[in-house]
Amino acid sequence: MTQHSRRRFLGTAAASAAALTLPRVARGAGAPDAIVAEIGKRRAESLARLTAWIREPAIAAENRGMEAGCQTMLRLAREAGFEDAARVPTAGHPAVFGTLDAGAKRTLGVYFMYDVKQVDPAEWSSPPFEAALVDKPGFGRVMMGRGAVNQKGPQAAFLAALHAIRGAGHKPPVNLVLIAEGEEEIGSPHFTDAVRRPDVLAALQRCSGVFMPFAAQDPDGTVTVNLGAKGVVELELVASGAKWGRGPALDVHSSNRARLDSPSFHLVQALATLVTPDGDPAIDGFAHAVRRPTAAERALLDAAAARLDEATARRMLQAPRWARDVSWRDALERMAFAPTVNIEGLVAGYTGPGGKTVLPHRATAKLDLRLVPDMTYDGALAALRSHLQKRGFGDVEVNPSGGYDPTTTAADAPLIRAQLAVYERAGLDPVVWPRLAGSYPGHVFTSQPLGLPAGHFGLGHGGGAHAPNEYLVIEPANPRLAGWDGAVRSYVDYLFALATIG
Amino acid sequence: MTQHSRRRFLGTAAASAAALTLPRVARGAGAPDAIVAEIGKRRAESLARLTAWIREPAIAAENRGMEAGCQTMLRLAREAGFEDAARVPTAGHPAVFGTLDAGAKRTLGVYFMYDVKQVDPAEWSSPPFEAALVDKPGFGRVMMGRGAVNQKGPQAAFLAALHAIRGAGHKPPVNLVLIAEGEEEIGSPHFTDAVRRPDVLAALQRCSGVFMPFAAQDPDGTVTVNLGAKGVVELELVASGAKWGRGPALDVHSSNRARLDSPSFHLVQALATLVTPDGDPAIDGFAHAVRRPTAAERALLDAAAARLDEATARRMLQAPRWARDVSWRDALERMAFAPTVNIEGLVAGYTGPGGKTVLPHRATAKLDLRLVPDMTYDGALAALRSHLQKRGFGDVEVNPSGGYDPTTTAADAPLIRAQLAVYERAGLDPVVWPRLAGSYPGHVFTSQPLGLPAGHFGLGHGGGAHAPNEYLVIEPANPRLAGWDGAVRSYVDYLFALATIG
Repeated sequence: MTQHSRRRFLGTAAASAAALTLPRVARGAGAPDAIVAEIGKRRAESLARLTAWIREPAIAAENRGMEAGCQTMLRLAREAGFEDAARVPTAGHPAVFGTLDAGAKRTLGVYFMYDVKQVDPAEWSSPPFEAALVDKPGFGRVMMGRGAVNQKGPQAAFLAALHAIRGAGHKPPVNLVLIAEGEEEIGSPHFTDAVRRPDVLAALQRCSGVFMPFAAQDPDGTVTVNLGAKGVVELELVASGAKWGRGPALDVHSSNRARLDSPSFHLVQALATLVTPDGDPAIDGFAHAVRRPTAAERALLDAAAARLDEATARRMLQAPRWARDVSWRDALERMAFAPTVNIEGLVAGYTGPGGKTVLPHRATAKLDLRLVPDMTYDGALAALRSHLQKRGFGDVEVNPSGGYDPTTTAADAPLIRAQLAVYERAGLDPVVWPRLAGSYPGHVFTSQPLGLPAGHFGLGHGGGAHAPNEYLVIEPANPRLAGWDGAVRSYVDYLFALATIG
Repeated sequence: MTQHSRRRFLGTAAASAAALTLPRVARGAGAPDAIVAEIGKRRAESLARLTAWIREPAIAAENRGMEAGCQTMLRLAREAGFEDAARVPTAGHPAVFGTLDAGAKRTLGVYFMYDVKQVDPAEWSSPPFEAALVDKPGFGRVMMGRGAVNQKGPQAAFLAALHAIRGAGHKPPVNLVLIAEGEEEIGSPHFTDAVRRPDVLAALQRCSGVFMPFAAQDPDGTVTVNLGAKGVVELELVASGAKWGRGPALDVHSSNRARLDSPSFHLVQALATLVTPDGDPAIDGFAHAVRRPTAAERALLDAAAARLDEATARRMLQAPRWARDVSWRDALERMAFAPTVNIEGLVAGYTGPGGKTVLPHRATAKLDLRLVPDMTYDGALAALRSHLQKRGFGDVEVNPSGGYDPTTTAADAPLIRAQLAVYERAGLDPVVWPRLAGSYPGHVFTSQPLGLPAGHFGLGHGGGAHAPNEYLVIEPANPRLAGWDGAVRSYVDYLFALATIG
């Protein structure tokens, strides 16, 4: 950073101090004033920490920067107070495990991920690993970069909360157990192994629950408490002449299409059987275990539909209508309760500019399948394999790359009640949402042997996860949105709420 | 070339002089002995010309090296005797037009292309633009490079024939008209315009027919005379949220698949309607104009099936069986008489390593449709558009990038009789084949206002057109195959045969 740009950066940060307050948070609610003041004093330090973190991408899918990413995670954990933070080797990229014993009665688990999704820099308006502060019309000043919201931004805000607590001369009001993985974006293939290590498991068994830092606010300020998350299977379907025993086993001139079968059309025909004409899952047996919403869950959906803004959601997605033209209420129910079959990507033959008259010998579809209770990762894969087999596509390779079971957490768990308390004290009247439509490896905590409540928490807003121009709002235009300081403050409040809730 | 490698190259060339003869070609058949001797004397010169040409790729699809490619084409034409060779500007890449007036009675048109197909160098065992001489097991010494067989190799052999004729103190026995284009590999979008230029049209109207230099021999030495070629439409089908009015208009997190339609599945569903479960064309009205083979054509197919080696064809294509498990005879009939729908490539969303949980807003399929008489380029496109429209895929963009109508040439045209005479005098008993399954813009010559016979001619063998490791056999292991000198000789013989045939 040059002298000039540093001065401008600090100037901007100071000038916007007013905008960074959370007007509807009662100052005395949970966190001592000294800590709140410390958050503001450490703003430049904590934003610089986030900036540096975004600038050092660790991308498991590309095996890029992973060792450096793990070392950074270790350093960040130690600096925030997890003094014993240690590397947990796995068969893949290592996890990081640390504890912070504050001598408190209650212990809280914190789940981090230090990897980020891949990027195509050509699609970004600001370089994805620059972490530039830019103006986003209608949103305010945002940090743009891969990981800004998923998940370095919220995680850095949580770390900033710990620095503020210590900086104000306090101890955290709860003990903490940190478990961070480096393979979340590839489906957490080794995270269960890391969590099952005896010392990690023993530490987590002392926890009242496990939470993941999260920017839970919509652009309009609405905040959501999730009572679980969908599961996911990520996989590739590969059709090839060699495996099929039809068509060519190498790319040949397309004139041969007259006498040779096409592995690409074979894949297309297989894919077409996976969904109904309307696009809903049509894999035999895939959705048998789907549990319909309970009366309580339906009530949550009704309340959410009344609270959440359909126009905002459509604008964010640039989507003129929902699948099957369902209502907003039913679109929300589908987000929480409908399993899905999605094509993430298609690759076959020639993919460059113009055409090239080849008959490709191989075609690949990248899919993700989202799961709801009581579906399982293993059950979904078995259903897909059997479906393809039965329809003459048994030769199409099913190559899973990772995923997890869905999760559910009870609304009366202390973890959830503390979240509701913080949001309500902030005047935000949270939407309680039955299930996050995204996926994370929470089942590792909610399933046996741990059987813990698990969820996401945090104020703030961001977008563009897994997409170009990912951002986190730092200085919001909308006063109902928490900016950076508000997000940090929400974690301080959360820890103090958890310490006192029965 | 270093001193050492040059000496080795020349040494190899000299040592293999015996192998380069065409043992079953009667020495006196058509071409004066002095010209035949001149071919051998100019071997290093003519191979160096081909090598240099391959090393300078002109790829219209990537707009790469096109101006240099046109200049080289002009120089090669002038050096070979087309002294008036001139650039013919078009709305795309320029064509090249030249004439060689030998004061002969008959005039022959020659069609060249100076562009080549794209490459993915990672797929090649020898760099595609190095034009290395390598040993290909079972084939002998081959030149490997993009354009080796399609079409610089055969074209350079034809130019070498003209240099040999002049070098031996002769004039070509027929007048020649050269028309070369630079957009063959993108479907010749402006070639008709070039040919319709008054001076070009007038010159072509003086011709008995137009031929394209071609390596017509199979690996076993069998040579084929084609009485036409299939037509082709190259196009992209694009499904997008924006055009569809469903799904997102930008890539979004795949959790939204629960409430949003998928443009990728929309494309998959559209593609699935284009073929039968067996993979044959199912586009409404597409094949209405298909003319069944006549009795004479069926007799040609029967004869070809008895002559051509099925095992060789399967080995070249690494294909264990033909589409619909048809016989060799019917596989050949499909090559000549069946229209096709081929997927050249598929591209949607994330195409890199591993997965990425996005719901892509856009998906593209690159297709080629091969046409037989009496189908037309315009008719095929109209059928496709109407088919998609009728089935609820009217929003899927149909973006043609080029193509042409099919061609037919009568077996008794002088152009064809001269080919048969040369091959028969060479003891090669040619297979007469109703229609090349590949496509070239021959319809520009066969259709009105020219209405000329058109075809391919030339001895020699190569493979890998449009694929990795494209090659032309220079010094064959199989004595029934013409090597470089044999290919050059075949063009000399052809011109002399054409001059004398009634």
